[in-house]
Amino acid sequence: MVVMESGRNRYGSPEDPSSAGWTEAKRMRLFSEEEPFVTEFGGRLPGVEVEYETYGELSPGRENAVLVEHALSGDAHAAGWDGKWGERPWRERKPGWWDGIIGPGKAIDTRRFFVICQNVLGSCYGTTGPRSADPATGKPYALSFPVVTVGDWVRLQAKVLDELGIERLHAVVGGSLGGQQAIEWGLAFPERVERIGVLAAAPNLSAQGLAFNAVGRHCILNDANFRGGDYYDGAPPSSGLAAARMLAHITYLSEDGMDKKFGRRLRSDIEHGGFGAEFEVESYLSHQGRSFVDRFDANSYLYITRAMDYYDASRRGGGDIVEACRRIDADVLVVSFDTDWLYPPEACRNFSRALAMCRKSVTYVDLSSPYGHDAFLVETERVGGLLRPFLEKRRASS
Amino acid sequence: MVVMESGRNRYGSPEDPSSAGWTEAKRMRLFSEEEPFVTEFGGRLPGVEVEYETYGELSPGRENAVLVEHALSGDAHAAGWDGKWGERPWRERKPGWWDGIIGPGKAIDTRRFFVICQNVLGSCYGTTGPRSADPATGKPYALSFPVVTVGDWVRLQAKVLDELGIERLHAVVGGSLGGQQAIEWGLAFPERVERIGVLAAAPNLSAQGLAFNAVGRHCILNDANFRGGDYYDGAPPSSGLAAARMLAHITYLSEDGMDKKFGRRLRSDIEHGGFGAEFEVESYLSHQGRSFVDRFDANSYLYITRAMDYYDASRRGGGDIVEACRRIDADVLVVSFDTDWLYPPEACRNFSRALAMCRKSVTYVDLSSPYGHDAFLVETERVGGLLRPFLEKRRASS
Repeated sequence: MVVMESGRNRYGSPEDPSSAGWTEAKRMRLFSEEEPFVTEFGGRLPGVEVEYETYGELSPGRENAVLVEHALSGDAHAAGWDGKWGERPWRERKPGWWDGIIGPGKAIDTRRFFVICQNVLGSCYGTTGPRSADPATGKPYALSFPVVTVGDWVRLQAKVLDELGIERLHAVVGGSLGGQQAIEWGLAFPERVERIGVLAAAPNLSAQGLAFNAVGRHCILNDANFRGGDYYDGAPPSSGLAAARMLAHITYLSEDGMDKKFGRRLRSDIEHGGFGAEFEVESYLSHQGRSFVDRFDANSYLYITRAMDYYDASRRGGGDIVEACRRIDADVLVVSFDTDWLYPPEACRNFSRALAMCRKSVTYVDLSSPYGHDAFLVETERVGGLLRPFLEKRRASS
Repeated sequence: MVVMESGRNRYGSPEDPSSAGWTEAKRMRLFSEEEPFVTEFGGRLPGVEVEYETYGELSPGRENAVLVEHALSGDAHAAGWDGKWGERPWRERKPGWWDGIIGPGKAIDTRRFFVICQNVLGSCYGTTGPRSADPATGKPYALSFPVVTVGDWVRLQAKVLDELGIERLHAVVGGSLGGQQAIEWGLAFPERVERIGVLAAAPNLSAQGLAFNAVGRHCILNDANFRGGDYYDGAPPSSGLAAARMLAHITYLSEDGMDKKFGRRLRSDIEHGGFGAEFEVESYLSHQGRSFVDRFDANSYLYITRAMDYYDASRRGGGDIVEACRRIDADVLVVSFDTDWLYPPEACRNFSRALAMCRKSVTYVDLSSPYGHDAFLVETERVGGLLRPFLEKRRASS
């Protein structure tokens, strides 16, 4: 293990004393030609770098670690602002994707917990992925990168924790695909995790969810610039990736939320009677698509959505989710949102019921929110109001 | 008016005496350089051909005509089998898209009614559209074809009826975008239509519906083969059109229906761990996409989805649907399907309520069906069970 950049976190700032302050990504190099990382499908990676951020201090007993899991397009930058202090003006710094939840005095209180967030394998945000150079060729892996699974991600995360000297986690918490990683932690390493917080996530994706991912990938794979994934020396498949993102965005919002936010309002600043973004909702989606292609790699989108497709917690129980849940030793919090149609309440409730049937300690809450699937990122106050006591309470089974 | 091919319908056949038999498309040429068809947006078409089919006989009093309206990807071939009798083996002939509803003894009984179905302006199934030659250049219109609206379609249909000597319709019936044409008939020509049957359609599309159409068009417009719509002399934008169709198909099915039909089943005939169509639902969508590009023109898809976006019956009432409904003189049947999320029951119910508030004769039925939006095509028996008495009953207001 080589920590390539040392982390320096500073808490509190003149601007926002409740934030984790500025953060810097750390990167850890693991595995080797002799001891490669072997994926669930049998792929071999001779070296893996993992980008991660930490907030707070590890207690002397190393028992206060909380692992936070990011979703499809997320990264290790969960809290604080990125960029070195003084390097960029404060206004230009970007807060972490869960800055409302993680920080001193916040729901995941960095005065008390040592918070870790790792970028997943296959992503484009620092951890090794299809854009990374294959040491055998010196060129990007592209589609020669092995297919990865949620199980692979969690095993790699556990390896990083080993290196950090963290044997047991106070909690693993995540939303959406991050919530599925939290579930997988409980199944793969029951002895290493005390609490699992699962937000807007179910044990697997529905047929409809699979279908949306399939269309998104179709758009990328058939973009003329895709060229079998070997596009890194030229124009990337931006229009395909934008389409995939636009489509995904529809599934992140609720129908009612979209009606309230955009309705059928037409933009007044462009001429009507053509195929441009004449409705406000079209303009919003176009913007979402355009801004995504500047920040995400199309190949990573293929790999990560595929991992999302494959994930099925019930496989640990031979297809029976109740059987699978018997493995879990942690206390579990499951939070769904009534307008989430990607991981709908019914699927989350079924997961909670399966846990209850195995006599596990599970708390299930369905929050009413207009924000659909996105609610786990948006409803920070209400999500935090559930997470805080869940992290603080003593375990039922310990 | 020139009827280019005369229609010959034969009823009953050894194979299926309840079918309209084989049908032949008729085509009518209308308008001229001197008297062009002028669209709602001000576009001018010097000549328009309309493809239509008819089933049954017009009564001497010309009072038994039922206009059937097709949906987005539909055509004039609503009933019977296409192709000339004896030309192709029976098995190869395609029944019309509503053959279960229209025919001798069926819900729309061709022994009693004279049924007409016209292909909409801008389509690629016989009526003038972007693929048709612009007489000014001799080349396909492509994107120089004027943007068309549901209002344009209905005005053109009325012109065809004028030529056929049909002043007043016994009924106009349609599902989805066809249902919106039925609504528009009631608003634009209240004196010409006695009954309106609206299935799986609302006065307008929701923000979410607009969003899905926007993503579909993005895929077509950004396909490398699209070339500004001038692709008729080369490869068409097939992958973009396939993506649009795959996406649309998700909205035509219900989440539960998809789960029951495909679930998360993996295909056993291909290797897993890649980006192919490994799940059955992926394979289904790929097939739907592929087969659509063989039968539909991408430019037509742009024009017709745009017409669908623009349609808003409430515009006739200055944005107030109740005000708009005052114009309607016909008896109205509104049928929604509980799992339809493209034109959800709530929107259909609101339309019915608006009609009721204007003291119109309206019957609203919400059918429970697992087939989602597609139910109006699939649930022929139950739809027919509502349509038959609606067409037979005497008008409340006549």
